[in-house]
Amino acid sequence: MLNFNFQNPTKIHFGEGQISVISKEVPLDARVLLVYGGGSIKGNGVYKQVIDALSEHTFFEFSGIEPNPTYDTLMKAQEIIKRENIDYLLAVGGGSVVDGAKFIAAAALYEGNDEGINAGSDPWDILAKQQVITKALPIGAVLTLPATGSESNGNSVVTRDGIKLPFSSPLVRPLFAVLDPSVTLSLSDRQISNGVVDAFVHTIEQYLTYSVNGKVQDRFSEGLLQTLIEEGPKALLPETKENLEVRANIMWSATMALNGLIGAGVPQDWSTHMIGHELTGAFGIDHARTLSIVLPAVMKVRKGQKREKLLQYAARVWRITEGDENTRIDKAIRLTEEFFETMQVPTRLSDVDLANKDIDLLIERLGQHGMTALGEHSDITLEISRELLTQAL
Amino acid sequence: MLNFNFQNPTKIHFGEGQISVISKEVPLDARVLLVYGGGSIKGNGVYKQVIDALSEHTFFEFSGIEPNPTYDTLMKAQEIIKRENIDYLLAVGGGSVVDGAKFIAAAALYEGNDEGINAGSDPWDILAKQQVITKALPIGAVLTLPATGSESNGNSVVTRDGIKLPFSSPLVRPLFAVLDPSVTLSLSDRQISNGVVDAFVHTIEQYLTYSVNGKVQDRFSEGLLQTLIEEGPKALLPETKENLEVRANIMWSATMALNGLIGAGVPQDWSTHMIGHELTGAFGIDHARTLSIVLPAVMKVRKGQKREKLLQYAARVWRITEGDENTRIDKAIRLTEEFFETMQVPTRLSDVDLANKDIDLLIERLGQHGMTALGEHSDITLEISRELLTQAL
Repeated sequence: MLNFNFQNPTKIHFGEGQISVISKEVPLDARVLLVYGGGSIKGNGVYKQVIDALSEHTFFEFSGIEPNPTYDTLMKAQEIIKRENIDYLLAVGGGSVVDGAKFIAAAALYEGNDEGINAGSDPWDILAKQQVITKALPIGAVLTLPATGSESNGNSVVTRDGIKLPFSSPLVRPLFAVLDPSVTLSLSDRQISNGVVDAFVHTIEQYLTYSVNGKVQDRFSEGLLQTLIEEGPKALLPETKENLEVRANIMWSATMALNGLIGAGVPQDWSTHMIGHELTGAFGIDHARTLSIVLPAVMKVRKGQKREKLLQYAARVWRITEGDENTRIDKAIRLTEEFFETMQVPTRLSDVDLANKDIDLLIERLGQHGMTALGEHSDITLEISRELLTQAL
Repeated sequence: MLNFNFQNPTKIHFGEGQISVISKEVPLDARVLLVYGGGSIKGNGVYKQVIDALSEHTFFEFSGIEPNPTYDTLMKAQEIIKRENIDYLLAVGGGSVVDGAKFIAAAALYEGNDEGINAGSDPWDILAKQQVITKALPIGAVLTLPATGSESNGNSVVTRDGIKLPFSSPLVRPLFAVLDPSVTLSLSDRQISNGVVDAFVHTIEQYLTYSVNGKVQDRFSEGLLQTLIEEGPKALLPETKENLEVRANIMWSATMALNGLIGAGVPQDWSTHMIGHELTGAFGIDHARTLSIVLPAVMKVRKGQKREKLLQYAARVWRITEGDENTRIDKAIRLTEEFFETMQVPTRLSDVDLANKDIDLLIERLGQHGMTALGEHSDITLEISRELLTQAL
């Protein structure tokens, strides 16, 4: 096991009916900005539950945060924050809304970083120059879409001009998160699919690397993968899709997949995500669907480097015990692809109408964004990324 | 899954050499009381590492906290706290020292609870009248013995006149905990055995109940049990006992076993602990050794109530797939007993020279302490406790 530091103070309120706790979690004297997306929360009853819980609070609203939230949209929130002296953000939505709220929270109090040679007070520097933030507005979250884990971590991804830029700080980790699985019943099949696949690949990125004998981390990851494999498809089947236990298990898995725990003390990969981000940026493909396209190719091309963990994955997650090593690994990769197909997501670039000619642009962008040494060994060069994308055709 | 609220803000510093972080974690202007036990930390180098890290801090010492820390010992710390205006406790030791520091921290600022009809300012009320505390001194912990999970939870057990009394508050949860597995190399076999068994039974108490389809919690628990079964015996074998990876996996398992995570959203039992506490109180048996005696009896006597989970435990933890249901359950119980025997702890009352005649006293004490409705169904009466103890003869 590698040395690690781990802390996750986000308070989780899990279960049906828990949205009402925000009346107590948000300080009564706070000036709250309710931050949400396209308005689906008004159709599914979540908005009303939130408003009811805030009946004694002073709050304002900022809506319109899009999937893959953009810098331009998020900066529009600064006006109401200044005008109304907002001092608390309540994000109500999926990962994009929570990610967006994090950038809004950081930008609102950004004064530049005196210590950096790139000092300046433009919030854009948080993303473009990776300036460390020193303060942020407090955030609470009501999660409506289990997927990104953003509700209990300090990570955020913001898009500008088709480029996805991450930032991270413990200061923007939500103070509390409400996870009510019944809220997810109104999601489309596509949203559920994307969420399950996103959580699955988050787990894989922290698990399928090389062994450091972190037995607890490995088994926790395997437990999440098995749970997502079992429960994900049920959330799409007519006879089980309304089952709240299925939704609860998916929701808790997605949070645990990226709250820092399973990745503490073990190497991490994230090459699938970095390459996937370019697919979203260049071609507008849903985040999770870029992952289901790239991951099988990573498993195939990096079979040598990931051999030991692929065998463990085959044995423990898929219960494959027959055949020689290569046979077992190949079967595990095939079953992973079949799981993605069951989840109705693409596993090939051709499934989203991309071809060999499109790879050049992706490689060019990876180069522009400094993604020239990816993976747990930092040895996935642009040449290997090209090999991965070619494999994924 | 049951509804739940979960929060664990303790910052974990895990790995060899991490003790030095206390120089930054403990505020420089704090007046620190270093709290420890019988002085073993002076023999194994931990004391020196701590002192070195505190070279720029103002600190005082309070030692002599015994296993199963007593109220009388802990109250002696109040004098130095008042005299030296102590405002920070640094607990260096195992679960007893951390538990003791928690009571010291609560007692130091206890002013009684105005709202209770039993209001008063005697710290004894925290234990005897279960008065809710409203403040406590901040605590940091350097763990030397992986076992109780006390380093990242809000629980404490204090003994007075042979009676073990628990209290719990998020206010006494350590702000940070240093877990350096190399520190555990100086422990005796008996200390390691007890720690592994304690962590194992903590997990079982939150797992072996009835199913609420909490798939993540179940798999996390199973992962901890498997890890302890694999690594525990290695920590006793001459050829592997010095292996730091073994120690690291045991240490992280013990923390995860009782930091609140695996028990969130699932029913919990704790009957083995409650009955075990009386064995310690009445006959001075090591805590873990009371658990290894009581648990197999609970599994046997409560086979009907725990049937579904016992079958899952047999299949997933012990990989038992052959035979009818009773055969599989019986085999799992037998393997549990064999695991305890490998860990060199007793599994029978007769192993610690207790006999049928001693059961009356235990039942009497359970009655005195209100332990008349134990277990996940609150249906373990004194009569059933007697049956359990008779089974354990």
